[in-house]
Amino acid sequence: MTSSQKIIGATVFLLVSTSAALAQTDTKNLGAIRALRTADAAWLKTYEAKDVDKAVAFCDEQGSLLWPNAPRATGKSAIAKATADAFAIPGFKLEWRPDQIAVARSGELGYTSGTYIWSYKDSSGKPVSDKGKYLTVWKKQADGSWKVLFDMFNTDLPPS
Amino acid sequence: MTSSQKIIGATVFLLVSTSAALAQTDTKNLGAIRALRTADAAWLKTYEAKDVDKAVAFCDEQGSLLWPNAPRATGKSAIAKATADAFAIPGFKLEWRPDQIAVARSGELGYTSGTYIWSYKDSSGKPVSDKGKYLTVWKKQADGSWKVLFDMFNTDLPPS
Repeated sequence: MTSSQKIIGATVFLLVSTSAALAQTDTKNLGAIRALRTADAAWLKTYEAKDVDKAVAFCDEQGSLLWPNAPRATGKSAIAKATADAFAIPGFKLEWRPDQIAVARSGELGYTSGTYIWSYKDSSGKPVSDKGKYLTVWKKQADGSWKVLFDMFNTDLPPS
Repeated sequence: MTSSQKIIGATVFLLVSTSAALAQTDTKNLGAIRALRTADAAWLKTYEAKDVDKAVAFCDEQGSLLWPNAPRATGKSAIAKATADAFAIPGFKLEWRPDQIAVARSGELGYTSGTYIWSYKDSSGKPVSDKGKYLTVWKKQADGSWKVLFDMFNTDLPPS
């Protein structure tokens, strides 16, 4: 083997390694989409359990809840307050289901979006039901977990 | 130069090229954030001009407007109708300003988020003003332009 052949060999090896890395990124991306679907469903479980601490733990340190009828709630403390206030609503029950999930090729930023049904009791104790859509932007953390960077929703119903 | 030195030389060259490529990605990312800021501002201009066609042209073919009090509007035709309906509201005037912009390392997915002020006249001609927050997810197109994948907003004000 000549020097040139060795250099070409080394170059080809590195190029093949790069191609393998690119292919692996695609596979990782599918894995990331599955991870995001799992995180979205696990976050919903904390809402079903009305567990404020566990719900807040799904949010990024710099995360924001962009919920209707209130200013943006940014950071763990503000998120905890907004979440506790929601769970304290009499008869609070929330379900959501994502129908669009994607992750950037680089694998650290993604979103889930879908529909929700929310029911509660108003101040007179009358059951109220709302339905609408949501958009959640997620950021992958250093430990590999996905956390909520933004969570936003609004109603499909006409103004009351 | 021995064969080994040449191989090491070639390897170092390729590693340096890779580092340069990574550094370039960061620079590209800053460029992408600037591009997203420009796209967000240019989209607002089409709202100020109430130009439906130009406003819709900022949306991805699979884009969705997730606006309050209406189901999700997905695709150019539904987006055009929702946009035309908004522009037709008497006295419609909308301003928004992003205060958070980020792009994934891979450079094809990003978001802008910030605040809006919206004013219009109600059915009796009385001026109404609303303020709130928005979240727009953008996707880079094959031609390098950024288009809206999701646009969502809701009010900061208490329920009326």
